[in-house]
Amino acid sequence: MEDVPALGDALPLVATDPRWLGIALADLDAVHADHLHCERKAAQSALSLIRSYPQHTDLVTAMARLAHDETRHVVQVSQLMSRRGQPAAYDFGDDYAAKLREHIRKGEPSLRLDRLLVFAVIEGRSAERLQLLADALEDPKSRELYASLATAEVRHRDIFLALARDADPTGWRARAAELAAIEAEILENRAISARIH
Amino acid sequence: MEDVPALGDALPLVATDPRWLGIALADLDAVHADHLHCERKAAQSALSLIRSYPQHTDLVTAMARLAHDETRHVVQVSQLMSRRGQPAAYDFGDDYAAKLREHIRKGEPSLRLDRLLVFAVIEGRSAERLQLLADALEDPKSRELYASLATAEVRHRDIFLALARDADPTGWRARAAELAAIEAEILENRAISARIH
Repeated sequence: MEDVPALGDALPLVATDPRWLGIALADLDAVHADHLHCERKAAQSALSLIRSYPQHTDLVTAMARLAHDETRHVVQVSQLMSRRGQPAAYDFGDDYAAKLREHIRKGEPSLRLDRLLVFAVIEGRSAERLQLLADALEDPKSRELYASLATAEVRHRDIFLALARDADPTGWRARAAELAAIEAEILENRAISARIH
Repeated sequence: MEDVPALGDALPLVATDPRWLGIALADLDAVHADHLHCERKAAQSALSLIRSYPQHTDLVTAMARLAHDETRHVVQVSQLMSRRGQPAAYDFGDDYAAKLREHIRKGEPSLRLDRLLVFAVIEGRSAERLQLLADALEDPKSRELYASLATAEVRHRDIFLALARDADPTGWRARAAELAAIEAEILENRAISARIH
């Protein structure tokens, strides 16, 4: 896992619209409420890969560790919300992730490669936006938390990329670029809101 | 969470059939393969409760922590399997848990109470069996791991019971006893195999 593919630096392919940060900062409660579920779903997605690919020992260990990280993030975000006196809210669903998942090809080995790369793309975008928040937040504890979460998501992006490279050493790079372009287009055609994606 | 309901000691209601341990020890690879998925599903179940009940802050924090524990267990069991040179296997499903879940009543507030209690019952049984394994295994590292996992599952059982008590302070105890009796009957009518349940 140490030899991180250089392509990681190209995820996300297109920077977040500069208007997003202002919209997010104007309704931090909504951002945190959405963020809690993002971390929960990231943990669940990692666990779902263990269910699908138990025979891939490296993937099982990496995904169990990643889910372990993400569940700590759920604790941390829920604690932040408690400090702000904000109860969590229902998850309103995530059509951003759903639209990306539509591009996952059926049938192995494409299915495994695409699942890993879609998660890499989502982690890359999350890392970028959490860092934007970290740099802009005023509360020191929140800044620190968001900076640490952004760093973790960069690491997770690169774990998914390394697993994708193992799954398809010759094809992963081109497919990652395709999915990164698709992700940029999905965001471009989407209303900007006070959510992580 | 500290004031642990005394009923915890009554879960499981009926001790595991003494034949189970010999059958489990005779095919430890099968037990570990099943156990990995049990830990994964326990993490996923905890996360599913966060999705269903985000407004219950105590539940969100407790379940995020519990999922964090369970994901560490997935790492630990996968490492044990690696040491034994055993790749993980597909999950063959869990009709034990499925049969228990059939007794979860529809509609709130019964639904939340029953979901919490079914998880408490499962954790109670897991704790008992992991401790039986811990006491019987020969490999010192495996003994130590299983003893620590058994202790963790006792704690998880009591977390679910405490949340059930918060959900229904007057009714939780009687319902827990009902579900514990149902669980004992499910096990009695089930072939004994080299699995956790």
